[in-house]
Amino acid sequence: MRQAFRRAAGEPDHSRLYRLLQGAIDSEQLTPGLRLPSSRQLAQTLGIARNTVVHVYAQLALEGSLRAGVGRGTYVSAAAAVLSVGDLEPAHGAGAQLSTTTRLRLLSRRGTALLDGANAASLQWGAFTPGVPEVRLFPSLTWSRLQARLWRQVTPPQLSYATSGGDAGLRYAIAEHLREHRGMNCTAEQVVVTSGTQQSLHLVAQLLADPGDAVWIEDPGYWGARSVFGALGLKPVPVGLDAEGLSPSPRQLKAPPRLMFVSPAHQYPMGVLMSQPRRRQLLDYAALRGVWVIEDDYDSDFRYASRPLPALQKQDRHGRVIYLGTFSKTLFPAMRLAYLVLPPALVDPFARALSELYREGQTPQQAVLARFMSEGHYANHIRRMRGVYGARHDQLLLEIKRHFGSQLPVFGGDAGLHLVLGLPKALADQAVAQAVADAGVSTRPLSIYSLKRHAPIQGLLLGYGAVDEADIARHFATLVRVVQARMRSV
Amino acid sequence: MRQAFRRAAGEPDHSRLYRLLQGAIDSEQLTPGLRLPSSRQLAQTLGIARNTVVHVYAQLALEGSLRAGVGRGTYVSAAAAVLSVGDLEPAHGAGAQLSTTTRLRLLSRRGTALLDGANAASLQWGAFTPGVPEVRLFPSLTWSRLQARLWRQVTPPQLSYATSGGDAGLRYAIAEHLREHRGMNCTAEQVVVTSGTQQSLHLVAQLLADPGDAVWIEDPGYWGARSVFGALGLKPVPVGLDAEGLSPSPRQLKAPPRLMFVSPAHQYPMGVLMSQPRRRQLLDYAALRGVWVIEDDYDSDFRYASRPLPALQKQDRHGRVIYLGTFSKTLFPAMRLAYLVLPPALVDPFARALSELYREGQTPQQAVLARFMSEGHYANHIRRMRGVYGARHDQLLLEIKRHFGSQLPVFGGDAGLHLVLGLPKALADQAVAQAVADAGVSTRPLSIYSLKRHAPIQGLLLGYGAVDEADIARHFATLVRVVQARMRSV
Repeated sequence: MRQAFRRAAGEPDHSRLYRLLQGAIDSEQLTPGLRLPSSRQLAQTLGIARNTVVHVYAQLALEGSLRAGVGRGTYVSAAAAVLSVGDLEPAHGAGAQLSTTTRLRLLSRRGTALLDGANAASLQWGAFTPGVPEVRLFPSLTWSRLQARLWRQVTPPQLSYATSGGDAGLRYAIAEHLREHRGMNCTAEQVVVTSGTQQSLHLVAQLLADPGDAVWIEDPGYWGARSVFGALGLKPVPVGLDAEGLSPSPRQLKAPPRLMFVSPAHQYPMGVLMSQPRRRQLLDYAALRGVWVIEDDYDSDFRYASRPLPALQKQDRHGRVIYLGTFSKTLFPAMRLAYLVLPPALVDPFARALSELYREGQTPQQAVLARFMSEGHYANHIRRMRGVYGARHDQLLLEIKRHFGSQLPVFGGDAGLHLVLGLPKALADQAVAQAVADAGVSTRPLSIYSLKRHAPIQGLLLGYGAVDEADIARHFATLVRVVQARMRSV
Repeated sequence: MRQAFRRAAGEPDHSRLYRLLQGAIDSEQLTPGLRLPSSRQLAQTLGIARNTVVHVYAQLALEGSLRAGVGRGTYVSAAAAVLSVGDLEPAHGAGAQLSTTTRLRLLSRRGTALLDGANAASLQWGAFTPGVPEVRLFPSLTWSRLQARLWRQVTPPQLSYATSGGDAGLRYAIAEHLREHRGMNCTAEQVVVTSGTQQSLHLVAQLLADPGDAVWIEDPGYWGARSVFGALGLKPVPVGLDAEGLSPSPRQLKAPPRLMFVSPAHQYPMGVLMSQPRRRQLLDYAALRGVWVIEDDYDSDFRYASRPLPALQKQDRHGRVIYLGTFSKTLFPAMRLAYLVLPPALVDPFARALSELYREGQTPQQAVLARFMSEGHYANHIRRMRGVYGARHDQLLLEIKRHFGSQLPVFGGDAGLHLVLGLPKALADQAVAQAVADAGVSTRPLSIYSLKRHAPIQGLLLGYGAVDEADIARHFATLVRVVQARMRSV
C-alpha cells in the first residue's frame, strides 16, 4: 500500500489516497468485511496528515464503500444482498443468447422507424434550401437593444418555471396580430406559446388522439407533422389534393379520422390555396364527425400577388380548428417560438400539458418578442420581407421560364418561401437532388413529401428565402446544367 | 344589392364589396352556378370604380368562391362534388348519436390520463417552493453583456435550423465541466444539447423504448419523468429505495425493464446517495440484461458537506448509461437548455431524432452560454451559489430542529435545493400542504412523488433555493403553526 501510494506522484494526498482505496475496493483487493487500519495508523504508515485519512474515509463511507463499525474501526462494505447479478436467471428462459440479442438491438422499433423516415436536412442555409427565411435581414440591432432593456429589469418569475400558457404580453400581441392580419376571431386567452411547431404538434397528438387513431395528412405534405404523428402512435392517412386543396376520396370520407392536418393558406409544399367551398365543406364535415382540424398557417404572411386570405379558424363556428402559427419563417428558426390558437375549452388542458410534458419557458425571449411586436417592428419586418421575397420569387420564376419555358411545370402559387419545379416522370427526383447538391446547390426532392410508394409527381423544392436576388441566376444555371444533362440521358 | 352596399358605410369600397359578396355566397343568397353581372355593369350600378370590382372578383376567384366562365362572365362556384356532407353515412352504423358522443369526448384517453396525474404547480417562486433556484443572484449583467456581444456578430447558421447536436462551443464546454467537476469520461462529441430535461426524456423514451416496455422508476421519484414515460406508452414500474439507493425486489430483478431511471448523486426527492456497491451492481445488471440506465444528475453541483461524487456514467464500462444534465438548477429554469451525454453509438440517432421531432435551436442562447462557461462565469456562479444554498440549508435545518427537535424526521442529505420534512402517519400530507399554502407558504406533498396508492411516508418538500436566509425563520414559523395545529387535532 505504501509503495502504491508513493508511485502516484504529482497529485494531492487526498485525491491520491481516495483513488487508491477506491480502486482496491472496486477490484476486491480489499475484500468486503475487511477491517482497515485506523486513520491514525494509516496516516503514520503513509506519512501524511491524519485529517486527510479521516476525510477520505468519510467520503468513502458516504459513498457506501466503507462502513464505520458499531464499536470502533472502519470496514470495507459487504455488497448488498439484494442484487447478486451472478445468480440471475434469464428473463424468458432463453439464457445468455437472449441477453446478447437484447443488447444488439440498440434502438426501439419506433426509434428505428422514426429515423428511417427522417427528412431533417443537415444543410440549412443558402441557395436553394427550402423553408429557410432570410435571417441576414433580421433587425438584430433592434432585437439586441430590446433584449438588453429586458435584462436590466428581469424579474424572478421571468427566470423561473412558468405555467400560464406564455408571457401575457406576447399572447396579447399575437392575438392582435392575428385579428388584424389573418382576420381571426381570437383573444389572448386562446393563445398558448410553445417552443416551436413540432412541440405544438406533440401537444395536439398527445391531448387529442390515442395510439391507433387515424390522422389525415395532405399528400404530398409536411413530413415533420407525419414524423410526430407516427412517433406518437397515430396512423397517418395520406389524402390527395386537387386544385381546391385537400380532397378526400368518398371511401376516406366514410371513415372519419380523429385529426385532419391541413395548410389551407398555402399548401405545403404544392402551394395550393384551399377554396372557400372546400373550406366550408371540411369544417362542416369536421363538426358533424367530431374531427379536429389542425390548421398549419406557417407562412401565410408572405403572399405577393394578393392579400393573404383569412384563416380557416375564422370560419370555424363549432370550435373544431386548432390553429398553428410560428415565428420560424417570419423572424428566425433558431428562436424556437411558436403558438397555438385553441378553442376556449382546450386552453387549460393544453397549458397544463405543456407544463407537465415539457415545462414552459424561454420567458425572457418571449418578453423581448412581445415588445418587438408591440412596438411595431414585427409588422414592419414582415412588410419589408414581403417585398424582398416577392422580388426573389419573381426572379426565380423568370429564370425557370427562361431556361425551361413551359417544358417543366411550376407549382407554388404567389406565396411562401419556395417554388416546386416539376421534373419529367422518367427522372427520379432524389437522384437529381443529389446530383444538384454535388454541384453545390441545395434543393429537396418532392417525393420525400409523399407517403405513397410511387409519388404522383417528381420535382424539386427550390427555396428562395436564403439567397440574394442577384445570385439566383447563377445558382439556377448550375441546377439547369445538371437537370438538362439528366433529361438528355433518358 | 345596391341598398346593402350603401348601408355598410365607413369602410373602403373594396373591403365592403368583398364582404358583401362573400356573405351572399356563404349564405347561398347567391346560388352556385349563378352568373354575376360584369364588372363594368356592377361598378355602374354601385357607383364605384370598375377596378375595385375587378379586384374583388379576382380575389373571390382565387379563393374558389367565383369562377370565370369559359367564354365570358363570372359565376358563383358550384360546391365541389367530392364532399357532400349531407349524404354521409355514419362511420360505424350508430348514426348521429355516435357523432355526438365523439364530440363530447374532448381529450384523448392518454391526454386525460396525463392531466389526471399532472403535478406541475402554478406557483414557482418564493418560500418554500421546491426545485427553484435563486434566480435573483444570476449574474444578469454578465449574461446581458455576452448576449449583446454575440448579437453584434451573429451568423446566419446561428439563426437558422441546426442539426448537429448543439453549438460546438457549448458541447465542448459541457464536456470539460463534466470531466472536471463530475469525474466523467466523455468528449464533446458525446454531448447532445436539448431544450430541457423533459425533452431529453422524450428522446430517450422514443428512441430506446416501445409502447408497453417497462421502465423502473424510483418510488418516491421524479413525477416529471413518470409523466413523459406514461405519455409515450411505457409502463412505469415503481421500485423502492433503501439506504443505498434504488432497491429492486428479487421478483422485479427477474423481469428486466427496458429502461431504469435513477438519480444516484442525490435521489429525488429523498436525497439518498447511491452507494458504490449498489452502483456496481446496477451497472452489472444493466450490462447483463440489456437495460438502459438513465442517470438524472439534476443538482449534483450543490453538495455542501463533501465533494460531489463522480457520476455513475464514469463507472459504466458497457455503454449502458444515458446521462442527463440541465442548466435549470445551476442557472435558471426559463433558459430551457439541458443536455444528454450518450454512449458514442447513440449520438447520431439522438441528434437526428432531435432534429426530426423537435428541431434544434436556441442557437444564439447556446452560443452565449458557451462563452459564459468558457470565461469561467459558470464555475464561479456554482461556487458562489453552493455557499448561498449551504447557508440556507443549514438555516432551514436549524429551524426544523428548533421547532420539532427529533419529533419529525428530516430527509435530504447535504445537497440540493430542498429538504423533506416527514409528517406523522396520521396526517395526510396533501391536506397539510394545502393548509400551509393557504397560510401563504408553498411546499409540495411527498405523496405525489409516489405511484403507490398508500405512500410509505407522508411529508412535505421544503425548497430553500428561492428564499432569503433571513426570511427562513419567519416563513417556517408560519408552517409550524399550521402543522402543529394539525398534529394536536389528530
